[in-house]
Amino acid sequence: MRNFTLYERFSRAFHDYPKLSKLIIISTISGGGLIAYSEANAYKDAPNATGIKKKKVVVLGTGWAGTSFLKSLNSPSYDVQVISPRNYFAFTPLLPSVTCGTVEARSIVEPVRNIVKKKNVNVTFWEAECFKIDAQNKKVYCRSNQNTNLNGNKEFAVDYDYLVIAMGARPNTFNTPGVEENCHFLKEVEDAQRIRRHVIDNFEKASHPGLSDEERMRILHFVVVGGGPAGVEFAAELHDFVTEDLMKLYPSVKESVKITLLEAADHILNMFDKRITAFAEDKFQRDGIDVKLGSMVVKVTDKEISAKERGKGETTSMPFGMIVWSTGIGPHPMIKEFMKTVGQTNRRALATDEWLRVEGCDNVYALGDCATINQRKVMEDIAAIFRKADKDKSGTLTVREFQEAIDDICERYPQVELYLKNKKMRNIADLLMNAKGDVAKEAIELNIEEFKKALSEVDSQMKNLPATAQVAAQQGQYLAKCFNRMEECEKNPEGPLRFRESGRHRFQPFRYRHLGQFAPLGGEQTAAQLPGDWVSIGQSTQWLWYSVYASKLVSWRTRTLVISDWMRRFVFGRDSSGI
Amino acid sequence: MRNFTLYERFSRAFHDYPKLSKLIIISTISGGGLIAYSEANAYKDAPNATGIKKKKVVVLGTGWAGTSFLKSLNSPSYDVQVISPRNYFAFTPLLPSVTCGTVEARSIVEPVRNIVKKKNVNVTFWEAECFKIDAQNKKVYCRSNQNTNLNGNKEFAVDYDYLVIAMGARPNTFNTPGVEENCHFLKEVEDAQRIRRHVIDNFEKASHPGLSDEERMRILHFVVVGGGPAGVEFAAELHDFVTEDLMKLYPSVKESVKITLLEAADHILNMFDKRITAFAEDKFQRDGIDVKLGSMVVKVTDKEISAKERGKGETTSMPFGMIVWSTGIGPHPMIKEFMKTVGQTNRRALATDEWLRVEGCDNVYALGDCATINQRKVMEDIAAIFRKADKDKSGTLTVREFQEAIDDICERYPQVELYLKNKKMRNIADLLMNAKGDVAKEAIELNIEEFKKALSEVDSQMKNLPATAQVAAQQGQYLAKCFNRMEECEKNPEGPLRFRESGRHRFQPFRYRHLGQFAPLGGEQTAAQLPGDWVSIGQSTQWLWYSVYASKLVSWRTRTLVISDWMRRFVFGRDSSGI
Repeated sequence: MRNFTLYERFSRAFHDYPKLSKLIIISTISGGGLIAYSEANAYKDAPNATGIKKKKVVVLGTGWAGTSFLKSLNSPSYDVQVISPRNYFAFTPLLPSVTCGTVEARSIVEPVRNIVKKKNVNVTFWEAECFKIDAQNKKVYCRSNQNTNLNGNKEFAVDYDYLVIAMGARPNTFNTPGVEENCHFLKEVEDAQRIRRHVIDNFEKASHPGLSDEERMRILHFVVVGGGPAGVEFAAELHDFVTEDLMKLYPSVKESVKITLLEAADHILNMFDKRITAFAEDKFQRDGIDVKLGSMVVKVTDKEISAKERGKGETTSMPFGMIVWSTGIGPHPMIKEFMKTVGQTNRRALATDEWLRVEGCDNVYALGDCATINQRKVMEDIAAIFRKADKDKSGTLTVREFQEAIDDICERYPQVELYLKNKKMRNIADLLMNAKGDVAKEAIELNIEEFKKALSEVDSQMKNLPATAQVAAQQGQYLAKCFNRMEECEKNPEGPLRFRESGRHRFQPFRYRHLGQFAPLGGEQTAAQLPGDWVSIGQSTQWLWYSVYASKLVSWRTRTLVISDWMRRFVFGRDSSGI
Repeated sequence: MRNFTLYERFSRAFHDYPKLSKLIIISTISGGGLIAYSEANAYKDAPNATGIKKKKVVVLGTGWAGTSFLKSLNSPSYDVQVISPRNYFAFTPLLPSVTCGTVEARSIVEPVRNIVKKKNVNVTFWEAECFKIDAQNKKVYCRSNQNTNLNGNKEFAVDYDYLVIAMGARPNTFNTPGVEENCHFLKEVEDAQRIRRHVIDNFEKASHPGLSDEERMRILHFVVVGGGPAGVEFAAELHDFVTEDLMKLYPSVKESVKITLLEAADHILNMFDKRITAFAEDKFQRDGIDVKLGSMVVKVTDKEISAKERGKGETTSMPFGMIVWSTGIGPHPMIKEFMKTVGQTNRRALATDEWLRVEGCDNVYALGDCATINQRKVMEDIAAIFRKADKDKSGTLTVREFQEAIDDICERYPQVELYLKNKKMRNIADLLMNAKGDVAKEAIELNIEEFKKALSEVDSQMKNLPATAQVAAQQGQYLAKCFNRMEECEKNPEGPLRFRESGRHRFQPFRYRHLGQFAPLGGEQTAAQLPGDWVSIGQSTQWLWYSVYASKLVSWRTRTLVISDWMRRFVFGRDSSGI
């Protein structure tokens, strides 16, 4: 009975017909190009009704790791249940931009249901928080995170065959008193929205009549704690927001604005190349951002922040109007509890093996910021490696024997390859020769003790992966690929040799590929450290940043919105309405 | 020392050079046209330093009335102080669209500082709430509306020469118990944002496992109280959001969704033409929106709403998941207090005369939803009118004498003109002939009693103006024009004759010009009642709605954003992330 309107008919064409939905709307705005296209919302029928019981996969979390897993999972042999307190994925690298309205919050989020509905895998989503994992009985316990008045059934349990933990981490306050109560963090979209409101509120407050100069300066003193990429980017964004937009609207208070960045180490951005650090510190000095290095925050009250200067040992206090705390991450309390039950104590994150399997329990995987890969040491397995490599059971290894095993060794123990590379050794023979002394390559034969000596230092090359979106996304994708080929690889394992046992590992272990890292510094200047220690700084890097981030966004919707936000900011500036 | 980047240089061109700033970016997207251009941010020098003390105008409120006043005020002879708890103007007619994400909240707001900084009038803004007006001492008392920790100086007083009260109104709960605690209102941008989150939250809640069907139906029962334009538009928007977007993402709960609209009167949209009402009720029935007419809400608890059906007198209760209360407006408590101090009691809004001056005090103006114009009755002044019109002091009025005075009478008492129009009388002679009986026009002479009789019914035509954005905006503009010409009109009054005193009024009284009203009904169907009782319904009216609203938006920024929101929704649908 319902008449279809023009809008509905056109819109239906987009939503219902996958072929039509690739329709591309190209619009050219002021010389630049913007391409938007609607993704296919094709509804697939339930893929099989063959009666084979599907394995139940429960995914906890919808951040980078969880979402990347869900996006890459395409085997119809699973029933997937996603549980997260947020019903959306947020493109967190743009959070600092959201704090100042360069990009809108809604432009960087995409509903999980939208991400998963396009797949032929049966995925359901529940907005809830997991508060307990029972790995023995393969159950997770969840509760609705809403202030709901459901009749006593707020909590529920979910069974799993495989559990994928991707819950991320919490900001780390290092138990500094007053931080929880008086500082903003920068982990969630809501944090960024709160920061934005707080900045505007402080400018409004500072404009009030009858304020002393001292009070006005306090209100407009913005403190950033932590000189990592997020802290630095926020400080830079805030500086741009103040100078490009707010100073025009609040001319009476512009003299009172001050931004201070506190960093406990000797330099900001210390995970980057020295050239980048130096450029950033220099730029911040020119911009008037007060960078205090070697400053360890010891206490925060509602109006003052106290920091200890490492060199002098003195504690100084500064009045502040707003603090953003961005110093690192710690584990979720629930994860901490779970770690105790699986015998992992004194760790900062869930330890997994190289296949992302949580140590101490079966069929539980952990990835992203809540996990850390516990890379197996060569020295722990040295006897087994020797045995496997010594094919003729002679009790000694020849170069030839070792060379035959080296691919498996390097795959299983990536630190070996790293060690060779760092020591600038051409191949494994160099390593052995080092241990054996000056002997002709062909004549080398090592007994177990000599072999141990040759490899004694390789484990020093082991490094934890950084807690970045890049690592989490690669892990999610890796794990999904493993899940997609679970049955296939069960039959034909494709991983490296099992040194302590027989046969091969099912999958190749996870290997992280670093694609580079950006550090936006404000004023259309960005620094980037690209693979191969290639450093790029300046405005061209800002454009690289724009293009990389635009291409990495999760959907065409967010891509379009973020690009139009950038253009909007260029034409109209950032909005300063206090909503 | 600072190098200008490409961005800065281009951006400066926009912001600094008024001539360049008219640069027009034309982009053609999928056949439709979008025109965006940056407005001039030209900084004018302080216009005069002649030492003449400027009059201090305090404006309370930044809604339609206040903002329209500020936009139109252009006489440099005032120092304007704006005080409002919101530092932005919101385009409220689009609030129902914000509740469902058809338009983003930030697209319909514009910072007040942005609106006023382009002017040559000295305007300052303070984000604060006025809590007391002292008209005797010409002071207003304000306090910061932020949870601030200013040292005891949260409150401050501001002097004025002229006070413009444009604080709007509060939602009216008619003292129905439980409404404040359990219902959403739809007055502020924050309300719309809360409603949007609540709708999504309820869909998430309803998707939870272990819920009874009854509980799920309760959670997804959305109730709208009030069948005025806002309530009807919200119900329609919600219906569209559910059917066009949410049902695809929440297929498991779509059978449980229900929308109910409660209206105490016999019809929804009862201020509109009957054809529109009938069309709307019909459409809602087809859409499955349950419209309950003659339903008076008597009580709301956290899970149930009770309404009395007028015909039957029975009270029935319904479980609900969310209520939006949109039944009308009442005065702000502070305005109520102020009304007492100026001797206005038992009124629903501040009474003003036809020049928007608050009755009972000097130099205080009130406009918009917080005010109502107390139109002077003809019968109160009938003797004075007779005296003024009777130029030859003969004690009787001839048609000729009356005709000479009629322009002033109609201007001062617009009800006379309305009466003639409604009675389909060609001119004033008809009115007099009516009183005198069948006499030749030229021979008519009326004494005071006959004159009273002739005009005895004209006052019945007096009507209060509706509390709409249109009225508020016209009043703001009118008042600003009066202020702009204050000195000029002091010397050369241009208003109608003062009947009770000598001379003329300074200004013509405020006259409202009704430009028509829209009622969007969802599914790209809109009804409109245009001047001259012209009624238009359907999809073409929806396009008229789009163009009128786009043209009425306060700035090019909001215009661009709203138009791109509409396009975004068309291509990608509405976002359902719970932020």
